[in-house]
Amino acid sequence: MTTLPIIEDSLFGLDNLPYGVYSVDGSAPRVAVRLHDHVIDLGLLLGTEGDNDVFAAPTLNPFMAQGHARWVEVRAAIREALRGEVPQDALHRLDDVTLHLPVEVSDYVDFYASEHHASNLGRLFRPDNPDPLMPNWKHLPVGYHGRSASIVVSGTGIVRPQGQRKGPADEKPVFGPSTRLDIEAELGFIVGTGNAMGSSIAAEDAEQHIFGVVLFNDWSARDIQAWEYVPLGPNLGKSFASTISPWVVPLLALQEAKVSVPDQEPEVLPYLQMRQPWGLDVDLEVVWNGETVTRPPYAAMYWSPAQMLAHTTVNGAPTRTGDVYASGTISGPEKNQRGAFIELTWGGKEPVQVNGEERTFLEDGDQVTLTATAPGANGGRIGFGECTGRILPAR
Amino acid sequence: MTTLPIIEDSLFGLDNLPYGVYSVDGSAPRVAVRLHDHVIDLGLLLGTEGDNDVFAAPTLNPFMAQGHARWVEVRAAIREALRGEVPQDALHRLDDVTLHLPVEVSDYVDFYASEHHASNLGRLFRPDNPDPLMPNWKHLPVGYHGRSASIVVSGTGIVRPQGQRKGPADEKPVFGPSTRLDIEAELGFIVGTGNAMGSSIAAEDAEQHIFGVVLFNDWSARDIQAWEYVPLGPNLGKSFASTISPWVVPLLALQEAKVSVPDQEPEVLPYLQMRQPWGLDVDLEVVWNGETVTRPPYAAMYWSPAQMLAHTTVNGAPTRTGDVYASGTISGPEKNQRGAFIELTWGGKEPVQVNGEERTFLEDGDQVTLTATAPGANGGRIGFGECTGRILPAR
Repeated sequence: MTTLPIIEDSLFGLDNLPYGVYSVDGSAPRVAVRLHDHVIDLGLLLGTEGDNDVFAAPTLNPFMAQGHARWVEVRAAIREALRGEVPQDALHRLDDVTLHLPVEVSDYVDFYASEHHASNLGRLFRPDNPDPLMPNWKHLPVGYHGRSASIVVSGTGIVRPQGQRKGPADEKPVFGPSTRLDIEAELGFIVGTGNAMGSSIAAEDAEQHIFGVVLFNDWSARDIQAWEYVPLGPNLGKSFASTISPWVVPLLALQEAKVSVPDQEPEVLPYLQMRQPWGLDVDLEVVWNGETVTRPPYAAMYWSPAQMLAHTTVNGAPTRTGDVYASGTISGPEKNQRGAFIELTWGGKEPVQVNGEERTFLEDGDQVTLTATAPGANGGRIGFGECTGRILPAR
Repeated sequence: MTTLPIIEDSLFGLDNLPYGVYSVDGSAPRVAVRLHDHVIDLGLLLGTEGDNDVFAAPTLNPFMAQGHARWVEVRAAIREALRGEVPQDALHRLDDVTLHLPVEVSDYVDFYASEHHASNLGRLFRPDNPDPLMPNWKHLPVGYHGRSASIVVSGTGIVRPQGQRKGPADEKPVFGPSTRLDIEAELGFIVGTGNAMGSSIAAEDAEQHIFGVVLFNDWSARDIQAWEYVPLGPNLGKSFASTISPWVVPLLALQEAKVSVPDQEPEVLPYLQMRQPWGLDVDLEVVWNGETVTRPPYAAMYWSPAQMLAHTTVNGAPTRTGDVYASGTISGPEKNQRGAFIELTWGGKEPVQVNGEERTFLEDGDQVTLTATAPGANGGRIGFGECTGRILPAR
């Protein structure tokens, strides 16, 4: 048995306690919780008897399916256990473990919840339209379904996608590796318990259903996307890969991060109205080959995670344990707050400096890492796990 | 033991042998095959030893994951076994069993592969555009991801979705039950074995990956869809429910149904070219409250199922056992071949007669059934299982 130190100012202290799935030296993946730079096997910490059998599972899904009351109970039990003596065999150094995709993803939806991002993309993709926002944008959180199988854990290599594109100068479409490979810095929300077909989740009940939050990089091939996206939306421009951070920050850890969303004018329909502040004050950072190039503020997002879930289900569509929905690119009002390179470089026309080089879109070998922090208890801050990926050459 | 009769002209004879999942009196669901009006438990017919353990599973996924060579082998074994004596306990009357969703659906993509349908919808949704087809339409099979959790088996009640809509006369969006609830008569293709991320499936290899075919009704709320679909495509207008037939017709049973697709002009890119005819001569029928209202011909579809799969994976996106992709509405050149009511009634302006009543979109209590047949061996025909659903009032 050992006693873990209490580290002041840790981004991964007792107020955070994100969940993940780890293995060590090829062992079977199991559920863990992170404290500072320790990975703690939850089954060895709390036992695997009775309801705790879910900690021996290879994903968080069985635990998440136990519901909100259990999430509260287990979090309290973990905090209690970590203040005492911890079994030595439950404890690993972060550097010694392999982290796995923490959830088995059911359905995945990507939204478009930043007014700044939607406006910037409207200007870039539809320059002739007087209003960069579509008429529906302020009435509903626009979103589309993406490919669940393409969601991978941080550290997975990203193969440059091949596909069709047709630039203004091309007489007909050409095929080849994407030449405008981009990122989208987002938050992803993990549905812990869903709703049955024909029912819906009210915005004020979303708190009971959302298990936690991850960083989410929605890699995007802008040339493929621009050619394919009318009229049914993005498909191959996005479906090759999306990366999530390995640690799921519990929504229960983000209570101090709750803020009001920006004023919603015109007033939204009743099913989208919220009684409590439901924005999240999460500050992201995008690191390109080691250099921070932009700092997207989640607090500036127009639509809240609760509204996205209420909208997803208002037509009676079912959600399930393991559903992931992402916010869409997080962009703030300032240039250095834009969460996609197409915006940051204004369609590639205004390169940014990365380690002294002028850069626009991603080149083979480039690495992009998202990090984030949010207010925690007692004036401290809590961190998100890294969300990183390196571009591999097209095959 | 009993010997089953050989019925001439049966749509479900030895040349068809579709797979499904059944239970009887609340028993655990198991894999079955259909012969005429008999449901035959595959585990009891062929045993569940070794590789045959997959027949005791509650979905077809484990069997499908065994791959193409096993599909060929098992089909031959079934035909052999059904020509001999069949154990009495393996045999059920179709009317005595409950049929379940035959596959656990992984990712779901819906295409838009009928030129007639895409042209009709272009004229209806974008009347000011001179060309009803978007510039990309003849270069790639346009498609979007849909909601896997919403795919239900034939016979499941369809709750009328609620949602936002904004008609031309509405000053702002209104909320309520959809008033333009529609069908889309499609075929769905079940991926038996997929591809790893970063690899792709060539059009000529699609045959090795596609396990079988179902009838697919992509219920659509046109008022919700019309308001939400720009710029990221359909979401709530579709995500409330899609119905599939309970019997998966093996692609191996459809060899006589192979036909060339219509001429593809302009020539498609190399990754979409096919060496063999890959269209399917399947004749559908749409029955509205007992009356046949339209007969969509699958043979008229522009894009083939092989091209859809090649396109889905050309960017390195992974597919998995249990993926479903659907063709999009099947519409032929004639009015009585249109596979959606919005086309059949031209946006509701040209009602059709259903049991002597003038009808446009679906009313509560309406029932829609899709059926289909295709050429089988020796000049006969094979059938698809019924794909049916009744509209329940909004909740």
